[in-house]
Amino acid sequence: MNAEIIGIGSELLLGQIANTDAQFLSQQLSLLGIDVYWHTTVGDNRLRILEALHQASRRSDIIITTGGLGPTLDDISKETVTEFLKLDLIIHKPSLTRIEDYFRSLGRTMTENNAKQALFPREAIVLQNDNGTAPGMIIERDNKIYIVLPGPPAELQPMFINYVSPYLAGISGDGIFSKVLRVFGIGESAVEELIKDLLLKQGNPTIAPLAGAGEVKLRITAKASTLQEAASLIQPVQTEIETRLGNAIYGYDEDSMEDVVLNMLRVKGLRLALAESCTGGRISDLITNVPGASDVFLESCTTYSNEAKIARLGVSPGTLRKYGAVSIQTAREMAEGIRKTSGADIGCAVTGIAGPGGATDQKPVGLVFMAISDSKGTEVKEFRLGGDRLRIKQGSAMRLLNWLRLFLLERAAE
Amino acid sequence: MNAEIIGIGSELLLGQIANTDAQFLSQQLSLLGIDVYWHTTVGDNRLRILEALHQASRRSDIIITTGGLGPTLDDISKETVTEFLKLDLIIHKPSLTRIEDYFRSLGRTMTENNAKQALFPREAIVLQNDNGTAPGMIIERDNKIYIVLPGPPAELQPMFINYVSPYLAGISGDGIFSKVLRVFGIGESAVEELIKDLLLKQGNPTIAPLAGAGEVKLRITAKASTLQEAASLIQPVQTEIETRLGNAIYGYDEDSMEDVVLNMLRVKGLRLALAESCTGGRISDLITNVPGASDVFLESCTTYSNEAKIARLGVSPGTLRKYGAVSIQTAREMAEGIRKTSGADIGCAVTGIAGPGGATDQKPVGLVFMAISDSKGTEVKEFRLGGDRLRIKQGSAMRLLNWLRLFLLERAAE
Repeated sequence: MNAEIIGIGSELLLGQIANTDAQFLSQQLSLLGIDVYWHTTVGDNRLRILEALHQASRRSDIIITTGGLGPTLDDISKETVTEFLKLDLIIHKPSLTRIEDYFRSLGRTMTENNAKQALFPREAIVLQNDNGTAPGMIIERDNKIYIVLPGPPAELQPMFINYVSPYLAGISGDGIFSKVLRVFGIGESAVEELIKDLLLKQGNPTIAPLAGAGEVKLRITAKASTLQEAASLIQPVQTEIETRLGNAIYGYDEDSMEDVVLNMLRVKGLRLALAESCTGGRISDLITNVPGASDVFLESCTTYSNEAKIARLGVSPGTLRKYGAVSIQTAREMAEGIRKTSGADIGCAVTGIAGPGGATDQKPVGLVFMAISDSKGTEVKEFRLGGDRLRIKQGSAMRLLNWLRLFLLERAAE
Repeated sequence: MNAEIIGIGSELLLGQIANTDAQFLSQQLSLLGIDVYWHTTVGDNRLRILEALHQASRRSDIIITTGGLGPTLDDISKETVTEFLKLDLIIHKPSLTRIEDYFRSLGRTMTENNAKQALFPREAIVLQNDNGTAPGMIIERDNKIYIVLPGPPAELQPMFINYVSPYLAGISGDGIFSKVLRVFGIGESAVEELIKDLLLKQGNPTIAPLAGAGEVKLRITAKASTLQEAASLIQPVQTEIETRLGNAIYGYDEDSMEDVVLNMLRVKGLRLALAESCTGGRISDLITNVPGASDVFLESCTTYSNEAKIARLGVSPGTLRKYGAVSIQTAREMAEGIRKTSGADIGCAVTGIAGPGGATDQKPVGLVFMAISDSKGTEVKEFRLGGDRLRIKQGSAMRLLNWLRLFLLERAAE
């Protein structure tokens, strides 16, 4: 089976956004063993949408449209697909109720034009939108499958995963299964060197390194008819890679670094507090993205000013005067200070120069000091990061979390 | 004139990368006043590339391909475009010399397969690649323009800007200029209701609403031959929309909410401190993304535990017992507490239920209280947000920043 993705939206043709929906759907369809041969993008224009549907229906088994399901006049995707299939739109009561409830929950009244989002052909399987007002739909017609999805990734992605993927898995045969090993602290080429022979002799499963966002992902992919069969193909390759990369593998599949670190803390019954300066709250933000973070995370002080470092953390004014806010000494006192004042088991601190201002000859942009303090003492490290302000903030946050992970592994081994 | 972009590469169809080349080219073409009606993506497959060229040549004036110019066997874009146009490939000497020089400069010998990158039809304008080995080309044929570009953005972008854009500017007339108004706090359909008559009678300039990430952008676009002429077309429409939407317009073009708020604080000489609970440090993270935030931002306490709320902010244990951490009363004491303990002019606080756990019948997921405190007193608000944990965190952060913006506007008016 093969699929074609039709992106609908003038914002795509104006280059205001990249077509990340096509990327996401392509990845997901590949996991389902469905080939994608075409992406097409058109504006919110009836004639061109019809032309794209005509093209796609000649050459593809599954036709997926994204975007153009909003409440406004220029959103015409659903209407045009329905016209193309020569079907009629009628009110879909459950959807209308959901939309009304959605507005009520926000304390707002539904405007008239939102009602059009509840119109569907009788023949459609309506796909509930758990993150917005526009439902999607699936229509089977003339041996083709038409799938109409909303454009915003926050709506499209859960709708695909929760409703479309199970539907397609039911009608597709052989599947592709994969396991992702997530690696931090070693660059892509170094990872490749370590597993070069495995990469050269790969067959089924395949091994694909993919670098991005400061980490390397190794995707091991097996073609098999069952998950069990795939797992038995993947396992020996995975074990061999784990032996070679060791602790640099921090997680699997959708694990994030913050998931992994919070889980380790939870298992050990340790409570964490943070003192952030150059990261500006980003580490705390990442940690609190994990549901249930409050089990182990007590607090974070983003002490941007020197006064806050002194008042909140007890950093000595003398240390700040003598060594500066960006120094090994200040990082140490911040970590010890947050641990003592919060009552946490572990205190971590980050102070550095995120730029673009604030650098000196001795302290360039990207110089960052970090410290981890627990009942056994305090460790301090110096890092040098590249990139702009946002990359330095994010890179520092990830390095602190990764160091904390290794620190917890070491403590456990002691 | 209109253009179609044909992305060529199996990595696009597998979702390994997003088609950012199409986004970049669309932006650039729009600046040149060239409409883009279609994006098409196919793999490195001769028959499908030919079909895409056939489609495009029927409906578009300018056909741009990206990708598939590498030295390996599966790179066939140039060969297939040449076949489609019934032309022959011969060695282009200057390109061959450049490729040989490129390898020499790296201290490597050119491999045989790189020579194919120097093959071009006699009819082509060859586009020098200043950042790699694969030149591009332009061919004018049957009143159509075919432009063949390399895939890597680092090669494509300078090649387009330095060589293709001047070529197209020479043959195109008008340019497109636009102004974006950024709106927060009113939904897309409500915005549309307010300017419905303007949307219905639009011509030049056009007005395009675009919703996403919790805000609505209104892009006003004018076709004109000079920037001055465009500005004089845009200005009256902009003024009319500003009159109708008032304070809901928070910024223009690339302004972010945090940019706008920090600028207001800087202009007024006010210093800010934050007390965050359910946002977990996100507001602080957003604010410190802005270079120079330290001018006005003192600190943020992410007080996740009740103990931290008491110790850092002086929230009364009685308040927490009686009303709970997620309450009007706690929000108020948090804002007043952070203002007093930090010495800031303005203290803001957010406390709520980000979910998925922690909800009760009285306090559902998405219930959020916020407070702003200054020397004149403290204001408190209740919000109800939808979506998952991340949306509630981000939505709360944006609402707090927007409220602070409106608060500062009001104070200025008093």
